[in-house]
Amino acid sequence: MIVAPFGRFTEGRVPDPGIARLFTRENRWQARLDVEAALALAEADAGLIPAESARAIALTARIEKLDVKRVLAATAEASHPLVPLIEEFARAVGSKHGGWVHWGATTQNITQTADVLVLRDAHRAILRQLGRVLRSAGRLAESSAALPMAGRTHSQHAVPVTFGFKVAVWIDQLAAHADRLERLDERLFCVLMGGAAGTFASFGGSGRAIEAGVARRLGLHPMRVPSRSVNDGIVELVLVLAQLAGTIGKIGKDVYTLMQPEFAEAFEPVPEGTVGSSTMPHKRNPQLALDMQTMSAELRALAGPALESMLHDQEANGAMTALLEDVSASAAVLAGDMLARLEVVMDGLELDPGRMRANIRLSEGMIGSESLMLALGEKIGRQRAHDVVFAVAQATASGSRPFLELLHGDPVVSEAFDDDELRALLDPAGYLGLSVEIARELAACAGEAADRLEALPERIPVAIGSQRPGTPAG
Amino acid sequence: MIVAPFGRFTEGRVPDPGIARLFTRENRWQARLDVEAALALAEADAGLIPAESARAIALTARIEKLDVKRVLAATAEASHPLVPLIEEFARAVGSKHGGWVHWGATTQNITQTADVLVLRDAHRAILRQLGRVLRSAGRLAESSAALPMAGRTHSQHAVPVTFGFKVAVWIDQLAAHADRLERLDERLFCVLMGGAAGTFASFGGSGRAIEAGVARRLGLHPMRVPSRSVNDGIVELVLVLAQLAGTIGKIGKDVYTLMQPEFAEAFEPVPEGTVGSSTMPHKRNPQLALDMQTMSAELRALAGPALESMLHDQEANGAMTALLEDVSASAAVLAGDMLARLEVVMDGLELDPGRMRANIRLSEGMIGSESLMLALGEKIGRQRAHDVVFAVAQATASGSRPFLELLHGDPVVSEAFDDDELRALLDPAGYLGLSVEIARELAACAGEAADRLEALPERIPVAIGSQRPGTPAG
Amino acid sequence: MIVAPFGRFTEGRVPDPGIARLFTRENRWQARLDVEAALALAEADAGLIPAESARAIALTARIEKLDVKRVLAATAEASHPLVPLIEEFARAVGSKHGGWVHWGATTQNITQTADVLVLRDAHRAILRQLGRVLRSAGRLAESSAALPMAGRTHSQHAVPVTFGFKVAVWIDQLAAHADRLERLDERLFCVLMGGAAGTFASFGGSGRAIEAGVARRLGLHPMRVPSRSVNDGIVELVLVLAQLAGTIGKIGKDVYTLMQPEFAEAFEPVPEGTVGSSTMPHKRNPQLALDMQTMSAELRALAGPALESMLHDQEANGAMTALLEDVSASAAVLAGDMLARLEVVMDGLELDPGRMRANIRLSEGMIGSESLMLALGEKIGRQRAHDVVFAVAQATASGSRPFLELLHGDPVVSEAFDDDELRALLDPAGYLGLSVEIARELAACAGEAADRLEALPERIPVAIGSQRPGTPAG
Amino acid sequence: MIVAPFGRFTEGRVPDPGIARLFTRENRWQARLDVEAALALAEADAGLIPAESARAIALTARIEKLDVKRVLAATAEASHPLVPLIEEFARAVGSKHGGWVHWGATTQNITQTADVLVLRDAHRAILRQLGRVLRSAGRLAESSAALPMAGRTHSQHAVPVTFGFKVAVWIDQLAAHADRLERLDERLFCVLMGGAAGTFASFGGSGRAIEAGVARRLGLHPMRVPSRSVNDGIVELVLVLAQLAGTIGKIGKDVYTLMQPEFAEAFEPVPEGTVGSSTMPHKRNPQLALDMQTMSAELRALAGPALESMLHDQEANGAMTALLEDVSASAAVLAGDMLARLEVVMDGLELDPGRMRANIRLSEGMIGSESLMLALGEKIGRQRAHDVVFAVAQATASGSRPFLELLHGDPVVSEAFDDDELRALLDPAGYLGLSVEIARELAACAGEAADRLEALPERIPVAIGSQRPGTPAG
Repeated sequence: MIVAPFGRFTEGRVPDPGIARLFTRENRWQARLDVEAALALAEADAGLIPAESARAIALTARIEKLDVKRVLAATAEASHPLVPLIEEFARAVGSKHGGWVHWGATTQNITQTADVLVLRDAHRAILRQLGRVLRSAGRLAESSAALPMAGRTHSQHAVPVTFGFKVAVWIDQLAAHADRLERLDERLFCVLMGGAAGTFASFGGSGRAIEAGVARRLGLHPMRVPSRSVNDGIVELVLVLAQLAGTIGKIGKDVYTLMQPEFAEAFEPVPEGTVGSSTMPHKRNPQLALDMQTMSAELRALAGPALESMLHDQEANGAMTALLEDVSASAAVLAGDMLARLEVVMDGLELDPGRMRANIRLSEGMIGSESLMLALGEKIGRQRAHDVVFAVAQATASGSRPFLELLHGDPVVSEAFDDDELRALLDPAGYLGLSVEIARELAACAGEAADRLEALPERIPVAIGSQRPGTPAG
Repeated sequence: MIVAPFGRFTEGRVPDPGIARLFTRENRWQARLDVEAALALAEADAGLIPAESARAIALTARIEKLDVKRVLAATAEASHPLVPLIEEFARAVGSKHGGWVHWGATTQNITQTADVLVLRDAHRAILRQLGRVLRSAGRLAESSAALPMAGRTHSQHAVPVTFGFKVAVWIDQLAAHADRLERLDERLFCVLMGGAAGTFASFGGSGRAIEAGVARRLGLHPMRVPSRSVNDGIVELVLVLAQLAGTIGKIGKDVYTLMQPEFAEAFEPVPEGTVGSSTMPHKRNPQLALDMQTMSAELRALAGPALESMLHDQEANGAMTALLEDVSASAAVLAGDMLARLEVVMDGLELDPGRMRANIRLSEGMIGSESLMLALGEKIGRQRAHDVVFAVAQATASGSRPFLELLHGDPVVSEAFDDDELRALLDPAGYLGLSVEIARELAACAGEAADRLEALPERIPVAIGSQRPGTPAG
Repeated sequence: MIVAPFGRFTEGRVPDPGIARLFTRENRWQARLDVEAALALAEADAGLIPAESARAIALTARIEKLDVKRVLAATAEASHPLVPLIEEFARAVGSKHGGWVHWGATTQNITQTADVLVLRDAHRAILRQLGRVLRSAGRLAESSAALPMAGRTHSQHAVPVTFGFKVAVWIDQLAAHADRLERLDERLFCVLMGGAAGTFASFGGSGRAIEAGVARRLGLHPMRVPSRSVNDGIVELVLVLAQLAGTIGKIGKDVYTLMQPEFAEAFEPVPEGTVGSSTMPHKRNPQLALDMQTMSAELRALAGPALESMLHDQEANGAMTALLEDVSASAAVLAGDMLARLEVVMDGLELDPGRMRANIRLSEGMIGSESLMLALGEKIGRQRAHDVVFAVAQATASGSRPFLELLHGDPVVSEAFDDDELRALLDPAGYLGLSVEIARELAACAGEAADRLEALPERIPVAIGSQRPGTPAG
Repeated sequence: MIVAPFGRFTEGRVPDPGIARLFTRENRWQARLDVEAALALAEADAGLIPAESARAIALTARIEKLDVKRVLAATAEASHPLVPLIEEFARAVGSKHGGWVHWGATTQNITQTADVLVLRDAHRAILRQLGRVLRSAGRLAESSAALPMAGRTHSQHAVPVTFGFKVAVWIDQLAAHADRLERLDERLFCVLMGGAAGTFASFGGSGRAIEAGVARRLGLHPMRVPSRSVNDGIVELVLVLAQLAGTIGKIGKDVYTLMQPEFAEAFEPVPEGTVGSSTMPHKRNPQLALDMQTMSAELRALAGPALESMLHDQEANGAMTALLEDVSASAAVLAGDMLARLEVVMDGLELDPGRMRANIRLSEGMIGSESLMLALGEKIGRQRAHDVVFAVAQATASGSRPFLELLHGDPVVSEAFDDDELRALLDPAGYLGLSVEIARELAACAGEAADRLEALPERIPVAIGSQRPGTPAG
């Protein structure tokens, strides 16, 4: 699918999420060897293959022990995604035990289970990134909890909010996506170990025992029906990441908008030395907010093919499996890249409180029209109050005299309120509602989520002994 | 979006899911009145409006008491989705209390909360349909648990399965989607009651209390941040329905394939009198399986715009709200229509065991190649066994002599097995693995899910007293 | 028919594009009768059926002569999209000639050819709408050709443009889409008349002659291969309309942005009496620009299922045909609704030149940095000039002193230019490039396109004598 | 570059389309240097920069003359996609003339124009691939023009066709896509040379002359409005490739279906040594047909983000530009990979005429029901004939006696036809319609298209002197 065929020129500015590395051939092949090793050990437990052979297989299951070039050459020859790797692996295990490699398994049992291991590492990395983002967002919500600015709906001033309230909205959705990701477990992190058609036929009567043995060793779940056409768990991962992309696209748009000279309220960090334009020396572009929008579109576009990949035929259609393989890997990489940008933005966002104050005044007090209407409504009824204020607001919009002046001139309004009362009703700082409280609540919520997510071990260790890249030594 | 602009000509053949009816203007307006009533009562509790007015409002909140034509005419005039309804409602409530209608609320507070009530009814209807589908699927899995047929992967014969095993795969996914739907609660069934920008400013200090009062009366949840730009709960509903569409599309394809004369193994019911073709009198088309494929595509296509609707600006972008309104309603209707077809298919699917047996034999025993290879592998090693059987299978495929005959002619094979052993190894009925057990397990699982889902009350009663169409009198 | 399941509350404000009306059941059935009539006449010419019967069929081919309720009841019974209509039609024709109705045709021959007739009317209506939009856009480009404003890229000020230049960009793309639509002819407006599998078998040797006769009477083309699985022409229509939606979405975003109080440069018309908000009396929302964004997303989302509908099986898969039927009709209706909004916006857009001037100054002259850099570059080289101006711009952005003052303080700049020269280089009005010329060129181009499109007859008359709704009497 | 992040294991079996190579960094940078060179030469002609400098720039515009590592390091530092390349280029040109590099241009002028050059090479490669595919398809249609098989609609037997007729359908659509691709010229192969906001401001009065000079040297067109937000030409390329993916997905499905043991009518080539399964030695999977389905889904999924990339803001939104860059490159690579599979399939498809004959008989003569009905209809009227044959067909389907026997037993039928007549009416070979003629017409059409497409020069030479990879020396 689309994972920035040309790289992103902003790469130098953001932390490496380490997810692309998980999908290198070497790491994916290592995961396949892990699965083959777990399978052999489980089969030995079930008495299907000799225990000695299983040990030999497990000990040899390291990519460094294989001749990768030979596998590549044989792949081109055999046009098969796994058999050449198995053959080379069996050769490395040696003639005595090598014949027991891959016993009873079909290709997809190994490739998909291995991919799930890789996706699990990616899933962890993404959660930890989300933890860091939420940490910064929590701080930002806290520090700007009481900073007033114009609330805007449908591009127009609505009523005042605070910047912290805006961040609270971001936190709420990011935390919800983290929850969703954490809940994807039972149907995502599964071994697919049912053999050629999912019936365990090749494992004699020991199918469920072997499945359990492999699952235990890899820290995965068994499947209720281990059919090669059941892929909804992986599809769901893509869909949750696409929802995350929806939220990050929204945040990107927010920053992009606020950074315009006409708003000038918030700015993503622009480190010294960053060049905005080859021809306009003054340009300070929202590069990361731009990336977030691009990646949001690219990741959301994966929902369609992920859903299409559910259209398996009968016991399996390899086209659907391949499709979801490409889509899920692309989604994981994009999610990591997107979060890397968001981390930097959230950590370094600069605010301009003065400009926020100035912009609130752009509507010349009209941002307080609801406040005024409600106060007036208590005296003359809501609907009549709406009509009175509506008429004055319309006159303000179409004429040249300020809202306050026209209010003074209105007989109903001027009878109800004197100048001081009117000014108080129209004061944005007096009409923040629960903005401050909500910002603080969500700041706390972000902090708790960050505590939990940042504390996640980087990966669930696999009992076979392999180490995939990006994982700590311990 | 696309909800069969022309209807479906199969409508007469399937039960009415009743979901389109939920989205009529009348029913949606009634839900809005329910929300206005709940709001008034909650505001009275908080001392914001007079208790007597709230009672009058709640008593009048019936669509029959309003002049719908007047509302429609005023809508065209004011170009506003709610104000004309409120004005007419206030008029019906009367001049004494009508001024307290809609106090402090913004339009989306009412329209979105009301839509959520309607979506909740649709969600219930869908779950109950799923219950009926699972009931039939459970029966089918049970009755065909031991019925052997060819397992097929990538269009080719793989190893044998049973029909019940195939149904188990369907059940597994349908039950998973039912679980997903049931879990959508906290972020989907929420009141949006934060006022113009989500800060509760218009409710004085009573915002959270009013939100809680409305939520309690409507059986909904409050929102962590009641922002008009937070819509991930509704988006998630669309995505889960799109996943359901993925599965139903797959089932539709399976039936479509099996009903071909070349397979002729399973048939959706074709009631007497159904016309297949205007020009080919013999045609018995898989009409419902076709509908399922069409609707699957239409519903999956809603995932993209649902995700795009997350791209709100600042405190809200009404374009995104309207988009998700259209998309979520369309998704609910499509899901119901799709399930209505599946109900009929699952309930009436006819199987042809004889044809299944005949088709297994099409590969002339080669469907037993794995069984043979594993048995041979125990003697000479898996890889060598693969190579030997591979060579014979290749010769069978490219030549004209049958697999068994060529096996007899192979020195390695003939040394390992005599004719009886060979025939036993190639016997499909002896190589079903756990097909039968899995079919029965999932039949039980489907039954349990059906018990739970069919027992769901058709709707959660709303404390205000309204009855939306499709709901039982009790 | 549901495209926006709930309608749009802005309907009262915009002209009726008349496209939804084309897709009523009555109009679509009339089109089917037209096709049956054309078929009968062509078959009589080829000697396949009696000329007298063909005449009787053609004379009876009016929906008013049929008992629609009977057809509806029979449809529910037979579960067939066409046979009940044919039977009723044959009954109306009478027992003597009725037996020759639909001779040799398969259902899709009639339904798809009829749908193409309806799509052709929709296509015309859309082109004529585009003509009106281009007419207004041309006037707007002309009148604002020389009106300077800030050019903005990636949300930041770039170099000055004029408003007319911005409109020129809109015109360029709208005119390109009109061209694309006009070029869709040979593969879109075709009769599908090859019979059950596209081989003409049912027409004896007269297949091509009959196809030609039907095509001539309906003003359509024959197909190179009249297969029921060839649908790329209709798919292409949807894709072109989706591109149109891309452009209109962009225009909607532009207006939405410019209408914000922070920009306040351009405003869609807000007629007196329009209510913006139920709670904020001052709100003047960009309702039509919002609709344009919603509809853009809805129409773009149809590209996916349109493309998926190409995945026919063998000689046809009815699921794909039904899918494209729904999608193409929805696309046509959405295009019309979207253009209806654009018509009003383009015709009534209000500009605020003062605010445009004020906003240019927001970057305190830095919008002239390119102009300055190039002039300086001629003296000291482009790269060094970039570095010098970049340094001053960076200092301006991070400090508090104005650009011009810092430029005066820079030794390189101050040696190169005196104050007058500097002010001239930074004057936006002096750096408009070809904005004015391009605006005028495109205004002319829009006018020419409008002349051509508005002159299009509303429909190509069908030689059979039927009149579909929305078509002029003459 | 990742389109299929893991590559495709079938790569060794198919010709390299050479498109991925076009999108290497080296080749894309060379294209950028070509554009800078053309710009310098055009600016010298216009008197904007010294002719001697332009010559020096053009002579140095070779990627081999640059220090690529230095550019990469500076990119990470400056976080800019082009400035580091320009600086290194200017350094290589030398201090005397280097200052005139990139004079007056903005980044996107260079990057997008260069990408268009690369896309043009890809477009050529795709057309030439299409030529080869059409060549093989033409031969196949010719050789199988008269080979009868069952025509199938909605999975059921319809009326007979020939295999050549099926290929004719493929040809018709492939040739239509080739036509569409060839017609993409004026709005796709354009220089974007309008400077920072598309107004040519930086080129003094010479904007249009310089644009023309660059366009002439690169063999591209000028743009009517050279705005950075006008991208419909590139979007259209993606959409046409997505349509091509629709057709190739359909062909892939057709082959996949026909290769099933239950059909066994046509087979993609399976070269000796290809391994189908790691566990089922007999498996001969339709690997290329699978790839075609996977890639079809991946390429069709790019239509959505391509259309979304039209949502530019004001004079440009870099997120949209980056999105379309990624999408268009991915689409081109996928199209090439997909066509490479199709080439092999079309060239080596094996047919089994015997099995086709056998399968026709599966419906026991009912495939002739239309033929019979029409003959009977001439005697008793079409509708009555339909009813009679419908009743017999229904009885055949639900009972166990053959169609012919039941026909003999029907009084109406048996009165109308004797046994010989009945058998003749039901003979598939006698009811092929124009299958043979259409197959031959399209074979000829494919040949002509192939002649034209294969004769296309591999690339339009660029007048500057660079050679991009994959291009012949001559």
